[in-house]
Amino acid sequence: MGLLGIDPGLANTGWAVIETRGSSARARAYDVISSSADESLDVRLGRIYNRIGFAIRNYEPDCVSIESVYFGVNTRSAIWTAHARGAAIAAVASAGLPLGEYTPMQIKQAVVGTGSADKHQVTYMIRSILELDHDPKPDHCADALAAALCHANLSSTLATAERQSRLGITEGI
Amino acid sequence: MGLLGIDPGLANTGWAVIETRGSSARARAYDVISSSADESLDVRLGRIYNRIGFAIRNYEPDCVSIESVYFGVNTRSAIWTAHARGAAIAAVASAGLPLGEYTPMQIKQAVVGTGSADKHQVTYMIRSILELDHDPKPDHCADALAAALCHANLSSTLATAERQSRLGITEGI
Repeated sequence: MGLLGIDPGLANTGWAVIETRGSSARARAYDVISSSADESLDVRLGRIYNRIGFAIRNYEPDCVSIESVYFGVNTRSAIWTAHARGAAIAAVASAGLPLGEYTPMQIKQAVVGTGSADKHQVTYMIRSILELDHDPKPDHCADALAAALCHANLSSTLATAERQSRLGITEGI
Repeated sequence: MGLLGIDPGLANTGWAVIETRGSSARARAYDVISSSADESLDVRLGRIYNRIGFAIRNYEPDCVSIESVYFGVNTRSAIWTAHARGAAIAAVASAGLPLGEYTPMQIKQAVVGTGSADKHQVTYMIRSILELDHDPKPDHCADALAAALCHANLSSTLATAERQSRLGITEGI
């Protein structure tokens, strides 16, 4: 199964495509979509829409996973991230792909095993799971890979639970 | 000149196309793009992207004017409006049209003459300027018409100032 992970941001939107087969996963491609505050908002959002569309056409993922907005203390930053998400999700909708949304905590929990993991722990686990011989660069690619892995893990967990339920197997038996 | 005005919102995005000729303006079309909280975010944002794109292809405006996000007390509401803006602006960028952004206060100031005007005063002035024999419905269309008129007024003021500057005419002479 092909999965596109997106770490949205107005200045930097990371994206990554992974391929899963059974319990193994490998990275196919990842990059960052950058823009500067000197550029107009329509140019910046247009670039996010176009490049996410390009990644979808080029790597043909089966589904997409995107990090949700963190409602923290910095409202202004969350507002600009929401603009980037709007443009990225519009590109996913144009391609007609199913979308999963996960909080940063859910993503860390799925990849590292704890929602309070730091950046280095996330990168370490991504390198290990995807058998990469280097840290994924530029910045934001690791978070995009993590978003894709989170969706893969949760989909596979859900599929297993569904299979067990069909077979009449319940937890604890 | 054709202008597309947008009043963005996740549940309701108003849009309106006006045509200006000299100092007169008329409404060509207006409508609202609605969705429900039961629908997924990608479906809702995809609809905004598609319908704004449709309005652009159908009415071929020369430029677009959109209301900016109000950074008020309701952060959650501002975040969802920002998602809608992201999808709408991505559609404007895809069409390659120039975009103007205005605060609600700038729009009221341009249409009514005071930034603290209420909803009824805005509707009254829109009806008067565009010579409409009824209130523009559904809701949000009046705000989209106001956004378009604001851009038309400010563009025309800027053009006049530019012309006067080229002719060596300065205020007060």
